[in-house]
Amino acid sequence: MLHLQRVRWGWVLLLLLPVLVQAADPLPSWRNGPSRQAIEAFVTAVATEGGKDYVPEVERVAVFDNDGTLWSEQPLYFEVLFALDEVKRLAPQHPEWASQQPFKAVLEGDQKTLSDSGMDGMLKIVAATHAGVSTEAFMANTKRWLATAMHPRSHKPYTEMVFEPMLELLQYLRANGFRTYIVSGGEVAFMRAFAEEVYGVPPEQVIGTTLDARFIDDNGKLSIERLPKLLHNDDGPGKPVSIDARIGRRPILAFGNSDGDLQMLQWTMAGDGKRFAGLVHHTDAAREWAYDRDSKVGRLDKALDAARRANWTVVDMAREWQQVYPFESKQAQ
Amino acid sequence: MLHLQRVRWGWVLLLLLPVLVQAADPLPSWRNGPSRQAIEAFVTAVATEGGKDYVPEVERVAVFDNDGTLWSEQPLYFEVLFALDEVKRLAPQHPEWASQQPFKAVLEGDQKTLSDSGMDGMLKIVAATHAGVSTEAFMANTKRWLATAMHPRSHKPYTEMVFEPMLELLQYLRANGFRTYIVSGGEVAFMRAFAEEVYGVPPEQVIGTTLDARFIDDNGKLSIERLPKLLHNDDGPGKPVSIDARIGRRPILAFGNSDGDLQMLQWTMAGDGKRFAGLVHHTDAAREWAYDRDSKVGRLDKALDAARRANWTVVDMAREWQQVYPFESKQAQ
Repeated sequence: MLHLQRVRWGWVLLLLLPVLVQAADPLPSWRNGPSRQAIEAFVTAVATEGGKDYVPEVERVAVFDNDGTLWSEQPLYFEVLFALDEVKRLAPQHPEWASQQPFKAVLEGDQKTLSDSGMDGMLKIVAATHAGVSTEAFMANTKRWLATAMHPRSHKPYTEMVFEPMLELLQYLRANGFRTYIVSGGEVAFMRAFAEEVYGVPPEQVIGTTLDARFIDDNGKLSIERLPKLLHNDDGPGKPVSIDARIGRRPILAFGNSDGDLQMLQWTMAGDGKRFAGLVHHTDAAREWAYDRDSKVGRLDKALDAARRANWTVVDMAREWQQVYPFESKQAQ
Repeated sequence: MLHLQRVRWGWVLLLLLPVLVQAADPLPSWRNGPSRQAIEAFVTAVATEGGKDYVPEVERVAVFDNDGTLWSEQPLYFEVLFALDEVKRLAPQHPEWASQQPFKAVLEGDQKTLSDSGMDGMLKIVAATHAGVSTEAFMANTKRWLATAMHPRSHKPYTEMVFEPMLELLQYLRANGFRTYIVSGGEVAFMRAFAEEVYGVPPEQVIGTTLDARFIDDNGKLSIERLPKLLHNDDGPGKPVSIDARIGRRPILAFGNSDGDLQMLQWTMAGDGKRFAGLVHHTDAAREWAYDRDSKVGRLDKALDAARRANWTVVDMAREWQQVYPFESKQAQ
């Protein structure tokens, strides 16, 4: 009887083997390259109780940039594309925009004038599309756009332009007791509109660029109104500042893709004990985009040098990722 | 054999009964009054799966004011007492303070001049004692003070002037799947210096008044420097604003003790579903302090009216708390 049971289990295990092996791989889209090996070695080291590099769960804080790290950022940051679309949507309520820059340029598709309007122009567009409404209304605007707008090249919704290997990494870290945070130049409420559903990152773990706001009590109808005033620019040196202000712990893992992430990576690596810094290097012109030192969007120059010097993990997207987007057919690889 | 085991277990249970009953009461310092009943009814309602008022764990966000709600705030907010002590400690490095207000008044114990210096004077003291140092150094200063300074009346460390019933309430909520946040006028790093050890509230769940800060890279030595510039005043209408910015979810329970908590309570109660708003009413001149509508510190006037109108829970400290501070002898009650 006992013997028979053993034999039967043996068969079941044999039949299940391919399934079990697949289920046991938490990072199926990562080819067995140096980045995958570094990630697995790090997570095993800090999560193994009794090991010399063990880190208690409360200290397992992982921070991720968003644009270019968790989703694509070409031909322009997706939030900028949202803002431009919002200008068009709101134009009927603003007849004055027909003769007012930079709105006129947006409405006429005049890229040159828009580009020449620079940071000042961009701030005007952000103010017109991101402020003057309640948080609730703004998030509804974002969700409507995300549900309908299509990326100009892939013709897919923007929330499908996320990196499958990074989704797996977020999940793998959480399964190993990490809390995963977004720390990004994107505006907080914009990112919250999809971060929980798409990345599994809850609103309280989304850190980003922040507008000032005020509480409004309109005869008992309460709301938080977003103001056209930048409170915190969560880029470059602003990232360790917001990590300190919001989390109050130094992360032990940080992932970025551009010079705007350099200080966050430095800050993460400057702590005691075992730490991990990673950069997504956009090397894949065929499946995604290839750009680094000369790109206007997501320039990776100083941070790449720093990574080479300090032996941080630089993910070669073209070589190391089996799959880039979730929508790619597994057969086609 | 089986019978014998049953008998033996029966004895053990009988002997343990008083212990078990005590262990089963998560709020032993709360007398069986209306506040305790309201708290228990609320928590049971939102945490009972399948019940009509059930709230999923991710939405069980509870926010607590600190000064006057979790610890005492008389004769002055403890952080102000810290700042005044810090002026004295730092005076040898600032000979100019001997003739410079409001520092001169602090050093000479000139209450009248200090009080007359008002908000402008207070901001100068905050800048001198809370800024110009790294977060790390400031937290070390706070911890040193908390470890050595004694409250002028109780002669106990300030971290012992916490309310035993509120410690029990925080623990009770967490045991029922809540995340407990501090949302307080106190400065964030000051509160973080003790919130985790004393309240069990981790740094990422401490929200408060915020100073601006900047990242410093001094030849590879990295730090976050606190700047003498107020970024967010986490009082009154500032509380729902910071809750929205930091948590991104509307709390379902809020506890305060003063008019500075009114908007946080209103914001909490304005959501859908079952909600709880509580006020600690300082009615206990014998064991703590008795004050409300006319107090300079922790004035409770408009919020008390709002609570009466809306039937919020108002905790009568003198009647409803069996014990106020952890250091009180259980025998003496």
